[in-house]
Amino acid sequence: MSAARVVSRLLELNAVSDDPAGLKRLTLSSAHKRAVELVSGWMRAGGLDTRLDPTGTLVGRLESQRTGAAKTLLIGSHIDSVRNGGMFDGPLGVVIAIEALDQLRARGVALPFAVEVLAFGDEEGVRFPTSLTGSRAAAGTFDPASLDTRDAAGVSRREALVAFGCDPDLIGAEARDPASTLGYVEVHIEQGPVLEQRDLALGLVTAINGASRGEIFIKGEAGHSGTVPMAMRRDAAAAAAEIILAVEEVGKGTPDLAATVGRMEVPNGAVNVVPGAARLSLDVRSPSDADRAEALTRIRARIAEIAGRRGVAADVSISYDMPAAPCDPWLMDAFERALVAQGHAPFRLPSGAGHDAMSFRGRIPQSMLFVRCRGGISHRPDEFASQADIAAALSVLEAFLESLGANP
Amino acid sequence: MSAARVVSRLLELNAVSDDPAGLKRLTLSSAHKRAVELVSGWMRAGGLDTRLDPTGTLVGRLESQRTGAAKTLLIGSHIDSVRNGGMFDGPLGVVIAIEALDQLRARGVALPFAVEVLAFGDEEGVRFPTSLTGSRAAAGTFDPASLDTRDAAGVSRREALVAFGCDPDLIGAEARDPASTLGYVEVHIEQGPVLEQRDLALGLVTAINGASRGEIFIKGEAGHSGTVPMAMRRDAAAAAAEIILAVEEVGKGTPDLAATVGRMEVPNGAVNVVPGAARLSLDVRSPSDADRAEALTRIRARIAEIAGRRGVAADVSISYDMPAAPCDPWLMDAFERALVAQGHAPFRLPSGAGHDAMSFRGRIPQSMLFVRCRGGISHRPDEFASQADIAAALSVLEAFLESLGANP
Repeated sequence: MSAARVVSRLLELNAVSDDPAGLKRLTLSSAHKRAVELVSGWMRAGGLDTRLDPTGTLVGRLESQRTGAAKTLLIGSHIDSVRNGGMFDGPLGVVIAIEALDQLRARGVALPFAVEVLAFGDEEGVRFPTSLTGSRAAAGTFDPASLDTRDAAGVSRREALVAFGCDPDLIGAEARDPASTLGYVEVHIEQGPVLEQRDLALGLVTAINGASRGEIFIKGEAGHSGTVPMAMRRDAAAAAAEIILAVEEVGKGTPDLAATVGRMEVPNGAVNVVPGAARLSLDVRSPSDADRAEALTRIRARIAEIAGRRGVAADVSISYDMPAAPCDPWLMDAFERALVAQGHAPFRLPSGAGHDAMSFRGRIPQSMLFVRCRGGISHRPDEFASQADIAAALSVLEAFLESLGANP
Repeated sequence: MSAARVVSRLLELNAVSDDPAGLKRLTLSSAHKRAVELVSGWMRAGGLDTRLDPTGTLVGRLESQRTGAAKTLLIGSHIDSVRNGGMFDGPLGVVIAIEALDQLRARGVALPFAVEVLAFGDEEGVRFPTSLTGSRAAAGTFDPASLDTRDAAGVSRREALVAFGCDPDLIGAEARDPASTLGYVEVHIEQGPVLEQRDLALGLVTAINGASRGEIFIKGEAGHSGTVPMAMRRDAAAAAAEIILAVEEVGKGTPDLAATVGRMEVPNGAVNVVPGAARLSLDVRSPSDADRAEALTRIRARIAEIAGRRGVAADVSISYDMPAAPCDPWLMDAFERALVAQGHAPFRLPSGAGHDAMSFRGRIPQSMLFVRCRGGISHRPDEFASQADIAAALSVLEAFLESLGANP
């Protein structure tokens, strides 16, 4: 019955959209406001005290039912969406947290710590150039400069927050005290195909991968495709092709590393012109920052070798560099106990996508539980997680909370 | 002195442009009309009878100075240009032919055949979707459908011809009788780097390469660059990269074959998305139609192997297929005798670019003499052939005409 209520609530929330043709719930939008009201009602029905924090995060707090308990566990995810998004990415983690607490209350379990359910509203990063402001405020790493960033309509985040009923000047006070915070946990769909391929409902996240992104520009020499003999060419596209395969090989050569060329192009290319230039994107991710740095070093070396041999110039520029956020061993062990107790394999995997949990890196211990999703698909209307898998996640989350209560 | 006059005339002709910023002499344009008038004057000064044929080709005829001669040798090239083109591509072959005949006349050489200098005006194919109409009319393979093709302004070729002073209904009568035509010869800059690399002023063309052009479309599966492990990917760009290298390898594996991927793209590609599709262009050229067919077969086989191994779909569509136009052995031998007599190595090479000469394939014997150009560059204002190399070509053309006169 309880997993059924989670699914029912997810469906209800899915209808809260600023686009009748598909789910669109951008941060600090009208749909976001209505979603906050809807979820607030569920929180209050579950006995949580609710408030809207100064970043637009809905906070539902449940005090400990035991005396003398001082610490607080944070459980969260986000209720904003991409354009034409799916109903599970984010809301699942919020709705399942409310449900787990309600189930424990119904079973008379008194936790020796307070719990705050955090419904963040700024995870997808679609409206403003910055994102994760809610979780960064809670972690104490909020950057005030993000208040001055603007959306496509010219509205600043500060203006949007004020219109949402928030006072941006109070954001600093949201920073949780690590000494009194047990940790942050998040349930989320995997957004990848690994659990489905292994026939597992659930997986324990080891780290949110660090990522490097950049561009590779190759300069060769353009020529007539009919008149320049093969042996006299300095073909930028052929060099780019070798580089794409080198990036793939480096990616395959290290466990849990992903290396991707997502864009490739020959500027002003034509069927009858030997390419004089080529441009590639590069995306390298790993749960290990050392592995990622090593992969970048190997990719640069391979590119230099290929460019030298082919007589072309190749320039690699890395424009984005985010360290990995390892999950906390103590929280992971508690999840593992819960998984095993509920009859699941304690399968571990890294998260290739970013999440609010990574905002807590180096500040507050965090851990994530992944739920299998069909085909690894997310950010699309056909995003899907089964009620059976949601029921499994709910049972594990309840067992995790009880386990943590027994070993606080 | 005579090569100096060729260069001087080329410079004069280069100033006949519809764009003051660079050479622009599209077919049947105002600049083309003025070029016809200028070249007509040079032809008449050289004793040639001139007329404008119904396709806009300027024809200068010199009757044989010997009695009883019935056959005619055609010598030609084109006086139209691309946008922002160079001064040698086309005009060199026309101006040098006029000069060679004038030199022979000055030396009292009486050729035992008539000569027609053909200044074609439709080689570059920039204005209309069809091209080579002048040489095809002379060869007897003119396609009347080309009269209904239109330029970007909506003007049909028929309308443009009438405005140019031509009567399109008379084009059929331009077909030369193979029985009374000795052949067609053309002097042209190489438009490639081979002669320069070998330190040769001149080269004898073996064939105008046949060409196949088309597209390769690869369909894989898009995915999140962070969440889809390397081993589970069906990356269309990585498959495309292998295909690019396979095309290059096939090109390198056969003498005189060129195989080029000039365009490559990932439709809707993004830095953080594993490419679900990729599109490549394909251009394969060879003086041997059998080699070209064999190369296409090998490329298709390699693509099928790569696609099968990577679990992607790959479709090859060939949209253009032009057979090679082999040069005539008897005319080539005459050019070779002339080259050797003038102290040149009789170096042979195929033509990777198309020329009016290829219109005569299977109808009238043809042969071409290539002149070294700096850096293999053409279709640009910095296109360049030296006066010394032009002098060499002029001497060889004169010797060729005398040799042909001695062995008609």
